[in-house]
Amino acid sequence: MDLLSPALNRLLDSFLDEDLGRGDLTSIALQDCSGHAYLLSKQAGIFCGGQLIQRLFRRLDERVKINCLVAEGDRIIPGQRLIELDGPATSLVAGERTALNLSMRLSGIATATAALVAELQGTSVKLADTRKTTPGLRIFEKYAVRCGGGINHRLGLDDAAMLKENHIEWAGGITAAVRAIKQSAPWPSRVIVEAETFDQAEEAIKAGADGLLLDEFAPDKLKKIVPTLRELASLTSARKGLGTIILEASGVDPKEIKLVALTGVDFISTSSPVTRSSWLDFSMRFTRLDS
Amino acid sequence: MDLLSPALNRLLDSFLDEDLGRGDLTSIALQDCSGHAYLLSKQAGIFCGGQLIQRLFRRLDERVKINCLVAEGDRIIPGQRLIELDGPATSLVAGERTALNLSMRLSGIATATAALVAELQGTSVKLADTRKTTPGLRIFEKYAVRCGGGINHRLGLDDAAMLKENHIEWAGGITAAVRAIKQSAPWPSRVIVEAETFDQAEEAIKAGADGLLLDEFAPDKLKKIVPTLRELASLTSARKGLGTIILEASGVDPKEIKLVALTGVDFISTSSPVTRSSWLDFSMRFTRLDS
Amino acid sequence: MDLLSPALNRLLDSFLDEDLGRGDLTSIALQDCSGHAYLLSKQAGIFCGGQLIQRLFRRLDERVKINCLVAEGDRIIPGQRLIELDGPATSLVAGERTALNLSMRLSGIATATAALVAELQGTSVKLADTRKTTPGLRIFEKYAVRCGGGINHRLGLDDAAMLKENHIEWAGGITAAVRAIKQSAPWPSRVIVEAETFDQAEEAIKAGADGLLLDEFAPDKLKKIVPTLRELASLTSARKGLGTIILEASGVDPKEIKLVALTGVDFISTSSPVTRSSWLDFSMRFTRLDS
Amino acid sequence: MDLLSPALNRLLDSFLDEDLGRGDLTSIALQDCSGHAYLLSKQAGIFCGGQLIQRLFRRLDERVKINCLVAEGDRIIPGQRLIELDGPATSLVAGERTALNLSMRLSGIATATAALVAELQGTSVKLADTRKTTPGLRIFEKYAVRCGGGINHRLGLDDAAMLKENHIEWAGGITAAVRAIKQSAPWPSRVIVEAETFDQAEEAIKAGADGLLLDEFAPDKLKKIVPTLRELASLTSARKGLGTIILEASGVDPKEIKLVALTGVDFISTSSPVTRSSWLDFSMRFTRLDS
Amino acid sequence: MDLLSPALNRLLDSFLDEDLGRGDLTSIALQDCSGHAYLLSKQAGIFCGGQLIQRLFRRLDERVKINCLVAEGDRIIPGQRLIELDGPATSLVAGERTALNLSMRLSGIATATAALVAELQGTSVKLADTRKTTPGLRIFEKYAVRCGGGINHRLGLDDAAMLKENHIEWAGGITAAVRAIKQSAPWPSRVIVEAETFDQAEEAIKAGADGLLLDEFAPDKLKKIVPTLRELASLTSARKGLGTIILEASGVDPKEIKLVALTGVDFISTSSPVTRSSWLDFSMRFTRLDS
Amino acid sequence: MDLLSPALNRLLDSFLDEDLGRGDLTSIALQDCSGHAYLLSKQAGIFCGGQLIQRLFRRLDERVKINCLVAEGDRIIPGQRLIELDGPATSLVAGERTALNLSMRLSGIATATAALVAELQGTSVKLADTRKTTPGLRIFEKYAVRCGGGINHRLGLDDAAMLKENHIEWAGGITAAVRAIKQSAPWPSRVIVEAETFDQAEEAIKAGADGLLLDEFAPDKLKKIVPTLRELASLTSARKGLGTIILEASGVDPKEIKLVALTGVDFISTSSPVTRSSWLDFSMRFTRLDS
Repeated sequence: MDLLSPALNRLLDSFLDEDLGRGDLTSIALQDCSGHAYLLSKQAGIFCGGQLIQRLFRRLDERVKINCLVAEGDRIIPGQRLIELDGPATSLVAGERTALNLSMRLSGIATATAALVAELQGTSVKLADTRKTTPGLRIFEKYAVRCGGGINHRLGLDDAAMLKENHIEWAGGITAAVRAIKQSAPWPSRVIVEAETFDQAEEAIKAGADGLLLDEFAPDKLKKIVPTLRELASLTSARKGLGTIILEASGVDPKEIKLVALTGVDFISTSSPVTRSSWLDFSMRFTRLDS
Repeated sequence: MDLLSPALNRLLDSFLDEDLGRGDLTSIALQDCSGHAYLLSKQAGIFCGGQLIQRLFRRLDERVKINCLVAEGDRIIPGQRLIELDGPATSLVAGERTALNLSMRLSGIATATAALVAELQGTSVKLADTRKTTPGLRIFEKYAVRCGGGINHRLGLDDAAMLKENHIEWAGGITAAVRAIKQSAPWPSRVIVEAETFDQAEEAIKAGADGLLLDEFAPDKLKKIVPTLRELASLTSARKGLGTIILEASGVDPKEIKLVALTGVDFISTSSPVTRSSWLDFSMRFTRLDS
Repeated sequence: MDLLSPALNRLLDSFLDEDLGRGDLTSIALQDCSGHAYLLSKQAGIFCGGQLIQRLFRRLDERVKINCLVAEGDRIIPGQRLIELDGPATSLVAGERTALNLSMRLSGIATATAALVAELQGTSVKLADTRKTTPGLRIFEKYAVRCGGGINHRLGLDDAAMLKENHIEWAGGITAAVRAIKQSAPWPSRVIVEAETFDQAEEAIKAGADGLLLDEFAPDKLKKIVPTLRELASLTSARKGLGTIILEASGVDPKEIKLVALTGVDFISTSSPVTRSSWLDFSMRFTRLDS
Repeated sequence: MDLLSPALNRLLDSFLDEDLGRGDLTSIALQDCSGHAYLLSKQAGIFCGGQLIQRLFRRLDERVKINCLVAEGDRIIPGQRLIELDGPATSLVAGERTALNLSMRLSGIATATAALVAELQGTSVKLADTRKTTPGLRIFEKYAVRCGGGINHRLGLDDAAMLKENHIEWAGGITAAVRAIKQSAPWPSRVIVEAETFDQAEEAIKAGADGLLLDEFAPDKLKKIVPTLRELASLTSARKGLGTIILEASGVDPKEIKLVALTGVDFISTSSPVTRSSWLDFSMRFTRLDS
Repeated sequence: MDLLSPALNRLLDSFLDEDLGRGDLTSIALQDCSGHAYLLSKQAGIFCGGQLIQRLFRRLDERVKINCLVAEGDRIIPGQRLIELDGPATSLVAGERTALNLSMRLSGIATATAALVAELQGTSVKLADTRKTTPGLRIFEKYAVRCGGGINHRLGLDDAAMLKENHIEWAGGITAAVRAIKQSAPWPSRVIVEAETFDQAEEAIKAGADGLLLDEFAPDKLKKIVPTLRELASLTSARKGLGTIILEASGVDPKEIKLVALTGVDFISTSSPVTRSSWLDFSMRFTRLDS
Repeated sequence: MDLLSPALNRLLDSFLDEDLGRGDLTSIALQDCSGHAYLLSKQAGIFCGGQLIQRLFRRLDERVKINCLVAEGDRIIPGQRLIELDGPATSLVAGERTALNLSMRLSGIATATAALVAELQGTSVKLADTRKTTPGLRIFEKYAVRCGGGINHRLGLDDAAMLKENHIEWAGGITAAVRAIKQSAPWPSRVIVEAETFDQAEEAIKAGADGLLLDEFAPDKLKKIVPTLRELASLTSARKGLGTIILEASGVDPKEIKLVALTGVDFISTSSPVTRSSWLDFSMRFTRLDS
């Protein structure tokens, strides 16, 4: 998915402004010279953020020339050069920290995602993210998950309806809630119900939910109920034409991810690449050009 | 430090908009009812973000009433209620995820900071943060560091000048760089030099730097050079009136933080509470009010 | 669907600023008095925009008190009072034109939508809108369609994938395009294919599309192919678990809408309430309060 | 009038963002190829929006090359190619809908304007627009009116003062209101009074109004009072130096526009090209470039 | 003219943000107490900015209560209390400098304007401002001119057309330029021509200009040509219905302003209250409230 | 210090929009021709604003080519050509006034600053500005002070803490206030105390302040206390390692600036170049290019 929107430019601008404040004091010490710089990896992992760094420097100073040496989602090793930059020294220095912060954070997420995705190899189960993302960075963090081999769950409150405990109570039960949404939501939007018990799952299926989020079920419990739920879906006459129920496990202990993948669910969703990953370590190195 | 600026309101608005997109689909299922909610901690740690959650809901819907049960920087335990909210169900649900994401992230940073600060207890050494912060969140993340007992290093490129390897090369050496800055920067700004060798440290002191960032020196090496550098500072006639040199260790192995604290440096700066911490786990619970 | 987001406030602000420019010159002539005003309908139709007018005046001047006499989506008659306002004369006058322009436009769309929806009465076919909306007003115009009894199609390029002629050519055919999307798009997003021939429709079904947009098929042609397509969907083994194909007719001649509704499609999508409707005619009347 | 301001760029950005949301899902299916596209007219009318489409794509992606085949305000026929575009397929697709929505809407207005202007041919009477414009689009819709041969009435509340019923009541009568404005408004601003009776018109002329908006007078009534009002203006000693009164008819039945044009008024103002016109029908066609 | 627009709120926010940056460091030293403050004049002059200070503090913190002791445009004396404020100490301190900077600047302009207006007393000649205003502050500075008794010239490039040397050359002469504008500009806009010679003035009158800006004519020269120009206007048959020519003197030596006022021109326009005035000197005084 | 940030671009855009409003009416009269223009000085002084004019026109229209004939901070004479521009006539005219307003204002500040700096020649005392700057223009006005040879004091409330009378009262005295700040502020920030009496100065030194602002002390008084204060600082054991106290005089009568410079203070801070300077007088001249 291409990152093209003007909104993105404004976000990148705000990131630069946050660091620059009223201007880089050290630019005073930089004579009017040009420089060469490169982004260097100090850790192994999955790279993410090259196209953002390109756009970031273009926003700051169009004279900076950038060359990406690795593609988004590439596996990188310590000591590897990732990106080369040439341009006015003051601009290279002004954008350095922001470019590093963004790509280190995103590469950390991509790397953590890839590690979980690797556990799912050999199954058809996919790894999905959640709406637990750093405020202001969702579009970037979901992009990093994709670079790491995961897929995105809904992007916000507006592109699918997930009904949780509280919605259900306020709406007067699962059936009422699902029907209200199906009646009025944009037609391409799906309705997903978070179920913590088998009975909730059953009611949601009968009400016509498109998907179920099975939260914190133990792997053996999942193994038992997944076929039952699928069968229930195929037998419910009110579901005629709806297709099977899409089953998603959440609240999975990372150590049990393989076990859960073998229970027959379609997806495992987890926020851990976003909420529990460390940044990958990069640095930027500079050399002066005699001009 | 109070968080008062209109710029903060715009940031919080953008966080809400990011999740709401074109509107919360589930609001369809919520009848026109009011609700009660509370933020519940599922982990032990240091709390941070209560005043932001208050402001966030005020931006979304002024009818939501909020009561903070813990203060910023308080130590919290699993099962503890942190904040109570009352208001229209649709608004409580619309702000839930953003409020959680922000406070879980910040409390994670505050908690990690407090753990490092605890290691420094009994010394006069302080823990400082860095400019390695999530793009768009610096003002919040630096606030979380303060809630965790740390102090802030410079806030951006504009409130102090830190001269690194590249500046020094481009400026024609440490002495030239320091002098250029001292000549032209706003007078209350300090000049700090990043030194990787003793010789660099020495040159920086003689040039009149206000502070030195001693990067990746081993504790025993630090122990040896710190008194030497302080003495050098007191003997340099050109430093008359400048005060002692402020010494800051960076690139410290977390396991050696206590050792480093005993070497006589003034500060230890580290990005790890920002780049290596996990989010603290909170959830929001709802009950319907009969109105 | 509640209209809650801060982004909406900024939009309403921009509408006010557009008319106010550097300030209302006529405010010079208005003594410092308060007034009463009401919004009056001069035509019959469906009302839409009351909650927006409320928010609009709250943005302009919190002292203005507003009372909606009709609900969103209500049928109104000529001469009916819709909204009452009380507040400073200068503020009532400053917001008048913008409030009228917004509600007249939206009520025109709601009214045109309701007229088409009326044609579908007695069938289970729904009326959906399109992405042909006035730039900058989509969130409002889609809201007006809902007030008129229609449902929304996708809200933008990001909440569902519709593959048209050009995508198909560039992707290397329908099958390749559908698979690429299903592989990588957020899981709750649906894939819809625009088909102009039966063969295209067939390929899309076999490729696993969630929905088909059948563009500019004559009613009798539709009547013939709809059951065939549904059967094809049920027989395609690769669709196991996918559910039936959702069939949507577009490019429908308004005069034939009833006929098309009887062909068995699920939806009829049309931009005509947005692109071909006239504004409903309202005016605002004022009386001075002796204060 | 050139459309040059940075504010316009921000508006166009917001239009793109509205459709793109978090990104075009279909871009997944588009291989990294370039394409050729052209805008095709499917109806006869007056074209408007070419320079905006150019700027829109420049904001989205500078690599897109655009060539306008028709000038703003040109009469176009069905099947005519209007604009050619070359560039990355993902960018062409990302901007397509917004470009179409904007130009179809504006060309609809220009076409409806031109139809009314045609009725005035042979007279010196001009057609003017009003402040009834779609919120957020005024600068564009007034531009479309000019492209259709009309002229603009005041652009907002700040560039001329029009006194209506409510102002007059609040200000304490026409004379008081006109004098207050003439005393304090920026000198180049004109004062216009909306008159619904001859007596009001008379008072406004004597008070020194620059123009009169004669609202919903029948053509024969207008024919009678226009010369009387002009004579009154020339005889009023207090108007010495003010020039004649500028007379504008509004609330004109479109069928009587020719009749009204023959009554001697200077302008006829109408919102109908904005509030009652349909969009002109264009589509964009694509072909893949082998690169 | 009321200052009501949301755009103004955004401007005031940006002023606060400019000073607050990442937060007021001194708030650390302020215990959680409330305070009382008042704005004190240290100079005699004309006050301007009270309603802006009110709005500024409301944007910063709604708990601050403000009471204006003087009206906009009032003459004030040294030692006079102008505004009283009560609220949280941190908020009073956070807004202090911005409130002072804005009101001191605007009161300086109002005071300088009033001094020039005083010179015109006894004549019907008015003092007008120009477009020479501080970037970003025009709406405020033109407001200050009104508070000082002056009137505003055009507010921007869009509410009247002033043709200068360069326009005339590029348009192919005065007559061509005036006609082009009169043909296409919004009807309430006036056309003004800057004339540096009698011949230019003559051509402009014959072309139908609404006003003339007579630049840098000596008072005795003006005295001679003003009646001639007025007579020319009344005799030009092409001006029938246009009214007299409005004559404006600019480039006037402040010492000769009375002389120029006696030449019969309608206005004298000058940028000097904006470009040559000093700020009025105010300070804010605080006392702590025991709460 | 380089002016690089995206925030600056947005500021320049807002300046252009302020003047352009809904578009330059005179562009109607400008045929589609190109032109040459130059900025001409009509006064002697110090030039400032060339790089801003360059950026301003690049924001407006990238086709405009600009050539600066003088450097920032250069001394200029009447009649000197400062900048040459080539481009579309409509764009040159559209940016003219904003470019002039900005550079005339800033050059006025630079010129006034240079005049005061000249008085300090032969001493090591520097001239510093204050936070008394025009709202919205601080970054530019502080830049102009640097162009005039002055240095900047703190840029906002966030890069240094200055404790004034009110802070001290609210914090419970100078000592408490200074300690609170030193405990919690970002480490590179300095603490400055405004002292109006010798006793306050003494307390501040003992409390560990980095700098003192000595407000409205007469030159002879200053001469007496400066050495005493310095000695006090060197003798205070609690200041060990803090360096000497930095002494700044404010509230200095411009006529006594030389006298004050000889008292031994480090800086003289004054707002007068910002609050009491007149704009330098420039104009823009145009010639048409035959194209």
